[in-house]
Amino acid sequence: MNAIIVGTGLIGGSMAKDLRCKYPEASIFGMDASEAHLEEAISLGIIDGIAGSKEFSEADIVIVSIPVDAIVKELPKLLDRIGDDSLVIDAGSTKSEICSIIADHPKRRNFLACHPIAGTEFSGPSAAVTELFAGKTNIICEVEKTAFKLQERALSIFSRLGMRIRYMNPEAHDRHIAYVSHLSHISSFMLGKTVIEKEKNERDIFDMAGSGFESTVRLAKSSPAMWTPIFQQNKENVVETLDEYIQNLEAFKQKLIANNFEGIYNEMDNTNKIKLILKGIPQNKDR
Amino acid sequence: MNAIIVGTGLIGGSMAKDLRCKYPEASIFGMDASEAHLEEAISLGIIDGIAGSKEFSEADIVIVSIPVDAIVKELPKLLDRIGDDSLVIDAGSTKSEICSIIADHPKRRNFLACHPIAGTEFSGPSAAVTELFAGKTNIICEVEKTAFKLQERALSIFSRLGMRIRYMNPEAHDRHIAYVSHLSHISSFMLGKTVIEKEKNERDIFDMAGSGFESTVRLAKSSPAMWTPIFQQNKENVVETLDEYIQNLEAFKQKLIANNFEGIYNEMDNTNKIKLILKGIPQNKDR
Repeated sequence: MNAIIVGTGLIGGSMAKDLRCKYPEASIFGMDASEAHLEEAISLGIIDGIAGSKEFSEADIVIVSIPVDAIVKELPKLLDRIGDDSLVIDAGSTKSEICSIIADHPKRRNFLACHPIAGTEFSGPSAAVTELFAGKTNIICEVEKTAFKLQERALSIFSRLGMRIRYMNPEAHDRHIAYVSHLSHISSFMLGKTVIEKEKNERDIFDMAGSGFESTVRLAKSSPAMWTPIFQQNKENVVETLDEYIQNLEAFKQKLIANNFEGIYNEMDNTNKIKLILKGIPQNKDR
Repeated sequence: MNAIIVGTGLIGGSMAKDLRCKYPEASIFGMDASEAHLEEAISLGIIDGIAGSKEFSEADIVIVSIPVDAIVKELPKLLDRIGDDSLVIDAGSTKSEICSIIADHPKRRNFLACHPIAGTEFSGPSAAVTELFAGKTNIICEVEKTAFKLQERALSIFSRLGMRIRYMNPEAHDRHIAYVSHLSHISSFMLGKTVIEKEKNERDIFDMAGSGFESTVRLAKSSPAMWTPIFQQNKENVVETLDEYIQNLEAFKQKLIANNFEGIYNEMDNTNKIKLILKGIPQNKDR
C-alpha cells in the first residue's frame, strides 16, 4: 500500500494513523502547504517523508484533506501527477464545486468524491488520532464516475477503517450538510461572539458557565481557514438554513415577549424528539 | 445529618447521593410532586422515605430542587414547616424572583439562595449521579441575609461536595446567567427545530450528522417543564441576549450574501479565543 496524504492535519493525519495500523506494510508520504506541519507529521511518524514524483506515480491512494478552496485549486494538478492506476479521494465538507471542477479532467475516473463525517474542533498533525473514522459515515458522491476497480479499492480501505458508506449526489449532499453541520458551526461561533462581546469586561463571569455552554460553543474553536471556504462554496444553502434558524429564534423571542409560555413549552417539547435522532449518531470514542 | 430533598430529580437526587457518601450517617427523606418519582427515588436508595412534619422540624438541610415556578410557590410554605435551626437552600437557575418572594418571610434567615452550575440534559431520579458537583461553581446570592451559623453549615456541606463558591447579587446573577446558560438552551432548541423541520421527510439525513451537530443540539434534550419557567422569570434578560444573538447571526448572514469572506474569516478568528475561556470550565467527569 503506497499512500500519499495531501494535508497532514486532523483528517489526513488520522487517516494515515489508521492506514499504518490496518496496513502495517504501508509506505505513507505527505504534502502540506505548511513546512512546519510537514516536519511535525514526519517527527510524529504520521508520514515517512515528503511525496515526490516517484511516490505520485506509484500511489495506490492519494488522500486530499485540505481546505475546500485549496481542493478546488490543487485537485486538478494532483490528478495530473498520479499514475494511471492511482486512486485520489478528498475529504471536503462541500461536494458540488469540487465535483464540477474535475468533471472533464482526463483522470476523472481516478477520483472518488468523499466526505467522511468525522472530526474534532482541533487541527494540525498533533490533532490526529487513531480510529477517528470507526463507526462514522462516509458520504460518497458520483460513485458512477469512478473506475470500478478504484471504487473497490476505496471501499475496501473504508471498510478496514470501520466507516459506513452512504451514496448521494453532490447537490443533495451540500443541501443537507448545510443543516446538520454548517449551520451548527455558525450557531456556535455566533453564540461565542455574543457572550464574549457582552462579557468582555467581566472575566469572572465565565465562572458561571457550565458544561452546557461548553457543549454549545465547542465548535467555535474550529479553524476559520477551513470553515470560511466551506461557507463560501456552500453559500446558497448556508444562507437559506441560517435564514430559517434566525426566523425560528425570532419567533421564539416574540413568544417570550407576548408571554406565550404555553407556546414556548410546546416549541421545546416538540424539539425534544431530537433525543431519538441523536441516538443514531456515532460518537468519538474519547469524547 | 438530617436532610430533606424536595424534588428528587437530577439535581436533588445527585445531591442526595453525594450526601450519603460524604455523611454516611445521614438520614435523607424526600418530597416530590410526582408519586412515581418518589417511589423511584426510594427504590434507587436516593431517599430513605417520604418527609413528614417530624423530618421537617428536625432537618439540618432542606434542598429545594424543583422547577423555578414551583420554588416560588412552595418555598414560603417549606419555610413555614421547618424548625428554627433548619437551613433551606434552593438550586434554581433564576434568583431575583425567588429572593424577592421570601424577602419578608419570618424565616428568611433560614434560607440560602444558591445556583449550583451543574447538570446534564437528563432528568428524573434515574438521572442522578455521584460527584456531579465536584469542581463546579455554586453561586450564592444575598449571603448576608442568611443566619451566620447556617451559612457556615451550607459552606461546610458545599466544601465536602467539592464546589467552589461565588457570591453575587440576584440581579447580576440573572443578567449574566442569561448569556452563559439560558441563551445556549434557546440556541440549541431552535437549531434542533430548524433541522427537524427541514429534514422531517428525510430520515436518512441524520446519518450525515456528526458529533459536532450532537454537541450543539445536546441541550435541546432538556426538560421543557424546567426551562419554560426559567425563561418566564428571566424574560427581560433572555429577550435581550436573544436579540443580540439574532443580530449577530443576521450580520453574519449579510456578510455571506455580500461575499465578504474576509469579514466571515475575521468573525470566526476573533471568536476562536473562546478556547481560552472554555479551558476554565470544569467538565462532568463522565463526559
